[in-house]
Amino acid sequence: MKKYTVAILGASGAVGNAMLSALEERNFPIKELRLLASERSAGKKMMFCGNEIEIQKAESNSFIGCDLVLGAADNSISKQFAHDIQKANALYIDNSSAFRLDDHVPLVVPEINGEDVLNHHGIIANPNCSTIIGCIAVYAIHKINPIQSMIVSTYQAVSGAGIKGMEEYQNQLKDVYEGHPSSPKAFDYQIVGNLIPQIGSFLDNGFTSEEMKMQNEGRKILHNPHLFVNCTCVRVPVLRSHSLSMTLHLKNTYDLDEIKKALSHAKGCQLVDDPQNKLYPMPLDTSNQDNVYVGRLRKDLCNDHSLTLWCCGDQIRKGAAVNAIQIAEKCIELQCL
Amino acid sequence: MKKYTVAILGASGAVGNAMLSALEERNFPIKELRLLASERSAGKKMMFCGNEIEIQKAESNSFIGCDLVLGAADNSISKQFAHDIQKANALYIDNSSAFRLDDHVPLVVPEINGEDVLNHHGIIANPNCSTIIGCIAVYAIHKINPIQSMIVSTYQAVSGAGIKGMEEYQNQLKDVYEGHPSSPKAFDYQIVGNLIPQIGSFLDNGFTSEEMKMQNEGRKILHNPHLFVNCTCVRVPVLRSHSLSMTLHLKNTYDLDEIKKALSHAKGCQLVDDPQNKLYPMPLDTSNQDNVYVGRLRKDLCNDHSLTLWCCGDQIRKGAAVNAIQIAEKCIELQCL
Repeated sequence: MKKYTVAILGASGAVGNAMLSALEERNFPIKELRLLASERSAGKKMMFCGNEIEIQKAESNSFIGCDLVLGAADNSISKQFAHDIQKANALYIDNSSAFRLDDHVPLVVPEINGEDVLNHHGIIANPNCSTIIGCIAVYAIHKINPIQSMIVSTYQAVSGAGIKGMEEYQNQLKDVYEGHPSSPKAFDYQIVGNLIPQIGSFLDNGFTSEEMKMQNEGRKILHNPHLFVNCTCVRVPVLRSHSLSMTLHLKNTYDLDEIKKALSHAKGCQLVDDPQNKLYPMPLDTSNQDNVYVGRLRKDLCNDHSLTLWCCGDQIRKGAAVNAIQIAEKCIELQCL
Repeated sequence: MKKYTVAILGASGAVGNAMLSALEERNFPIKELRLLASERSAGKKMMFCGNEIEIQKAESNSFIGCDLVLGAADNSISKQFAHDIQKANALYIDNSSAFRLDDHVPLVVPEINGEDVLNHHGIIANPNCSTIIGCIAVYAIHKINPIQSMIVSTYQAVSGAGIKGMEEYQNQLKDVYEGHPSSPKAFDYQIVGNLIPQIGSFLDNGFTSEEMKMQNEGRKILHNPHLFVNCTCVRVPVLRSHSLSMTLHLKNTYDLDEIKKALSHAKGCQLVDDPQNKLYPMPLDTSNQDNVYVGRLRKDLCNDHSLTLWCCGDQIRKGAAVNAIQIAEKCIELQCL
């Protein structure tokens, strides 16, 4: 079996860390692993399969000899190095939003549009975390009854703001318990005991950049260019699992049991829907796992083409790191890596 | 000015406490105040206008001589004493859900349907907390462009489970920060760092009792018997302000500026909608206040008859105690107390 030289760009962050764990857990065929980050993190060491690997400063020539680069850095870093990665002839699987809507860049959730990797020209984009979780939750429904539009309210964990968001949350728990004033840095406002109805920046239509991702990226992932998604994104005081309350408007009326059956067989998805026994997805139960959990399925009271559900998924793993590794695995399977 | 003999039934709870404060703050014309509760709380003392008042055990004859009883007890206690209160010829303003859907009982949010108090037969019901907050947020819109249906996702504070819910939350902040396991009692699951997508009990249609309140009570408050509300109620780790993400389907298309103008003049409502300056309602800013705060107004991307907004309001005050006192004030104004 072929083995690959892999680099993680942005290895010291929350997603980079999770990529490292996922590569090890999934026994990804690695010949050499390079950990790249900013100068600030260079020299630090991380464990991989029992060995210490030192983080190197990411530079133009860091990618020479790489087969695969997993991007866990922000848009500006991603754009800065994308050309160097392509010049080195490595496949770049990028978790930033820099290239997601580029026509020449596949945007992939392997359980949904895995074969799109075949169209890559050196870059494959990893979708937004809430978009991955939402798309996994609804794809089995979409296959049997096309989704026309969705109204979504998110409950997004602090891990979406990276390690600094998670640390701020943890420290604020103490501050708030002890009654001390808190000085937010990672977030614009205190997050413990609060909700912040803004993620990303505001656009002219009144939605945020984060809110528009579910429509724009969802269209591309689901191959559904006319999908409309009306989304409200809210940061909540939860560590690392995102939750979504979704109402789908479907092309046709439907049988709820048939929808549940489809979801119970859906890849990457786990149906937890036993309300009488108080079983439904919750962030605490779904953290640090790779499946998206779906429950609270019920017929919308307003419209017989509509369906309401609730889903949760780990933002760092399936929402980012694990999906990226799964894209790489799909490329190996389809022989385009 | 006439003064009244007032009793608070369930005085020792979170809502009872807030009723006591609101009576004092609003300078309600009181001749005598009786604090009633279960045997467990009897003998404790509470402060009112500088005087200590001892809580008495609520009994059948506790209401003799009362003009007004403010109910802050649960459904079973409310039903137990309703007849005694009526026999004493007192007006009963009840915060429980026991009588809300009774045809002979007005269900009132004074800013919306205050004149309904005129139809009382001894009982006036105070609506569900999320329903009050949601109805205040949308009423000014409904007046100029009738609401046909709403899709709502709630973010409900722990205060909805009373003092025991608030205490559990506060103690859990410490347990979670220190990494200790937590043993939930007031809630079915840990609430700090988690979300619980169940409030109330499940019905056959897959919705919870709490979720159906916004449709059933909303119809009665808004005098809109054909209103449909598809609601998802979620408990979140926030102390006392409920938040709602709402998408309204209106009878007609609309001008967003006109809607904003109507909301800026709406009674009980405060428009906080300046996204470029990161100003929108948040639980922390809206706690311990009587207005409902509305923001994030924008045109739904799926339908030009639809509008999306975000609102927050204090669950204990406007969501319960203050609304009850405002009902009593309306009865005085309309001379039916």
